[in-house]
Amino acid sequence: MSTLNVDFERIFHPKRIAIVGVSTQDWGFGRGIMDSLISIGFEGEIYPVNPKGGEIYGRKIYPRVEDIPEDIDFAIIAVTAPLVPASLDACRRKGAAGAEILSAGFRELGTKEGIALEEAIKAEAKKGIRVIGPNCFGIYCPKSGLTLLPGPDLSRKTGPVAFLSQSGGMAIDLAFMGMWMGFSFSKVVSFGNGADLREVDFLEYLAHDEETGIIALYIEGVEDGKRFIQAVKKTAAKKPVIIYKGGLSESGKRAVASHTASMGGQKEIWEALIKQAGAVQVHSFRELCHTIQAFAMLPPRVYKGMTVLGGGGALGVSACDAAEENGLTFPPLSGAIYENILFSLPKPGSSAANPIDVANPFVPPQTLGFVMQEAAKDERIDIQVQITLFYHFKQMVTRFKMGALKDIVPVDQYVEAAFEAKEKTGKPIVIVLPNCRQELTDLDVEEVIRRAKEGFHQRGIPVFHDLTEAMKAIRNVSLYYERKNRLLTDPSLS
Amino acid sequence: MSTLNVDFERIFHPKRIAIVGVSTQDWGFGRGIMDSLISIGFEGEIYPVNPKGGEIYGRKIYPRVEDIPEDIDFAIIAVTAPLVPASLDACRRKGAAGAEILSAGFRELGTKEGIALEEAIKAEAKKGIRVIGPNCFGIYCPKSGLTLLPGPDLSRKTGPVAFLSQSGGMAIDLAFMGMWMGFSFSKVVSFGNGADLREVDFLEYLAHDEETGIIALYIEGVEDGKRFIQAVKKTAAKKPVIIYKGGLSESGKRAVASHTASMGGQKEIWEALIKQAGAVQVHSFRELCHTIQAFAMLPPRVYKGMTVLGGGGALGVSACDAAEENGLTFPPLSGAIYENILFSLPKPGSSAANPIDVANPFVPPQTLGFVMQEAAKDERIDIQVQITLFYHFKQMVTRFKMGALKDIVPVDQYVEAAFEAKEKTGKPIVIVLPNCRQELTDLDVEEVIRRAKEGFHQRGIPVFHDLTEAMKAIRNVSLYYERKNRLLTDPSLS
Repeated sequence: MSTLNVDFERIFHPKRIAIVGVSTQDWGFGRGIMDSLISIGFEGEIYPVNPKGGEIYGRKIYPRVEDIPEDIDFAIIAVTAPLVPASLDACRRKGAAGAEILSAGFRELGTKEGIALEEAIKAEAKKGIRVIGPNCFGIYCPKSGLTLLPGPDLSRKTGPVAFLSQSGGMAIDLAFMGMWMGFSFSKVVSFGNGADLREVDFLEYLAHDEETGIIALYIEGVEDGKRFIQAVKKTAAKKPVIIYKGGLSESGKRAVASHTASMGGQKEIWEALIKQAGAVQVHSFRELCHTIQAFAMLPPRVYKGMTVLGGGGALGVSACDAAEENGLTFPPLSGAIYENILFSLPKPGSSAANPIDVANPFVPPQTLGFVMQEAAKDERIDIQVQITLFYHFKQMVTRFKMGALKDIVPVDQYVEAAFEAKEKTGKPIVIVLPNCRQELTDLDVEEVIRRAKEGFHQRGIPVFHDLTEAMKAIRNVSLYYERKNRLLTDPSLS
Repeated sequence: MSTLNVDFERIFHPKRIAIVGVSTQDWGFGRGIMDSLISIGFEGEIYPVNPKGGEIYGRKIYPRVEDIPEDIDFAIIAVTAPLVPASLDACRRKGAAGAEILSAGFRELGTKEGIALEEAIKAEAKKGIRVIGPNCFGIYCPKSGLTLLPGPDLSRKTGPVAFLSQSGGMAIDLAFMGMWMGFSFSKVVSFGNGADLREVDFLEYLAHDEETGIIALYIEGVEDGKRFIQAVKKTAAKKPVIIYKGGLSESGKRAVASHTASMGGQKEIWEALIKQAGAVQVHSFRELCHTIQAFAMLPPRVYKGMTVLGGGGALGVSACDAAEENGLTFPPLSGAIYENILFSLPKPGSSAANPIDVANPFVPPQTLGFVMQEAAKDERIDIQVQITLFYHFKQMVTRFKMGALKDIVPVDQYVEAAFEAKEKTGKPIVIVLPNCRQELTDLDVEEVIRRAKEGFHQRGIPVFHDLTEAMKAIRNVSLYYERKNRLLTDPSLS
């Protein structure tokens, strides 16, 4: 079906919504989503519906959709599967532009009844009410306050990231990840079985959505491969598209069938198509998160030459190994730059070659900042990675009884030194904060790292826990801009 | 040099040690290691040495090694590089079987003077005092209380893991990791430049060390490749050997040279040799840690068929993809086993096919235990993985104001249910505890996860944070036992 006539504005920013299937007796999906919407502060009007009537949270419960006194923009449907088609019909008559169906029990069951019910949903959708789901967690839109089924405490902060996910679990997980990884969302859509609106429909919409700057997708399968790849190609020519395709293994295909009843497809074909379309493919949820983080915080360009500075030579060795796998290089520093850096570092034990070994974890942040400002003078350096081992400060507490860890670690100075280096040099900085001390008695270390992370993120400096993951994320940003440059000269898109 | 005459017993369990280069004025390496030894509770006698004499921590400082009133077993040398050879000579005359040299400033500098000083160390070693280092963090032996330079708060708990590391930073990092990943150490040796005793010497010793059951190595290069591979082969025929070879990339080789001045070597050659020798190769520090953890807690065997149970279908899809990459399979459950599992799970939304989708994160631990006991009845199942999303309980706190998170999550019941399933079925269980909520305000989630981890580990159930990492670790255990079976029939070893 065409999406030309879909009123996405009323779907993402509804003023009046019905929740069909809100029980005062138990904690079903209807009650759950109502709680979540109130908790997050949804700004429109909510009309709960249940044949038993009554009242909930000071609001009247309407026995039938027809009883709602106003027209509605959007509906959330959480009744048992057999009641879903009729509910959709009623909501359409009440003027709803769309509905999300949280209920499960459709095509994913593989039963005749389930498949028939999903066909009935499609038939209702064709009459004009566009459907998200069934078997999904719905829409999260921080701007309007729509939230996912288990999303009472998601952020209301808006940002450039859109996420389209066939999995509800992954939608909520990514929404949580953004809250501490330093990126925020324009729209998140968990579309489940995708009986009507699916990844491709939202993709075509998001390509032109001014609030969306980065689009990530988790898909298990698509219905119209050609249309999908064409949509990816057109979108990727405008903004980064990151695709995590699940179920590329043999047993993965079987799991896909019982999860969202989609067709999987060949691994090699998918990889080639995504590449040709100019998108970036990731292979795990972690990589998805890190890649979004890098796109959200790094300037849009291809990265090649880098520095890594940190304490301990093995970090440098590991860094080199990881860099080479990710198409990054360490131009050897020389001349005045090399001498100035070497002069500033403790001796013996440090090395001003690139990677830069700062010899110990207690080198003052100002020195690290100086080193990065110097290294950036080398034209070949596109990006700098600073690895800081805050957990080593813990021994000050245990060995020297120096008080609370958070009073010892000069977190703000680290943040300011890196920010200054970034601003003065115009070259991005990436921070890696590993944590080797994670005992129950080491929550103070975790607290310091999280404080630091908040500080760096507020200044637009992405923080990773692991160097290899940071490099992979940088590589994915580079891959996209390499492909974009190629795509922009593709005559088939003009 | 042969290691036949090395008195490893006196090196690892010294009764009397000299620390050469302890200052009362500053926090140099000598003072640092003395602090660390006292802090960890080293059980022998410590004799600090410094030409200025004086007193420290109630102990007399001897102006010269010769002034120490007793013979010594071991020495720790922390004077500046040019003074090292004479200190070694003095310690040898005092009867020391070995010495660790924490000082840097030798071959790794690449200077003529540095290289000459390292040669002088070798010459001293040939006279009979065996050397660990220079440019290292020394020995950590929980049994005797020897500890690494920055190791004042390492554990005194002993365990089967030995770690030989060319990098001091990695030695201390792994020692910390063991403390919360559920494994303990027999011996950890940071040997730095390896002027005398190196990985191969310790490997030959550990092959016969009854306290050591698993041997891990971080190496940047070896001096005698043939001897090394032969030692690996002989050792791997007896116990697991895990090798992390750093510096396999081009720029990695350059970093190796400035770090510990070793020769690197070709990537493909290393990989083939390690495989032929029956050891397991890992490619990152994280993989190293996870692999050790798996060897330490899983029964020694090859694993093929597995179950994964957890909430959310995408977990199952991701699980399948990761399993296939790691040589693991999900035998589809059927018959009574399938029916019993399906009956016990919430509906709709759950799936008793393998992977088992338990539909939501709040399924009671007793149900999860029952499911695992049922699934284990299928002969094809070798191992089971349970993924539990404790972070979803957080919404109970924010949404329902139910009090403290740690009072809501029945951590002990999860641990007991898994333990019971493991004991009753005789099949190992692996727990995965991801954490998508890591804001500063979510330290309570981290605390609950760490509590759970402690409980599982105490019952011999390994906990990972990430499913893919867990699978990779299981794969590495399988790889070793496959290779061992092959090695045991290798005539060249009889």
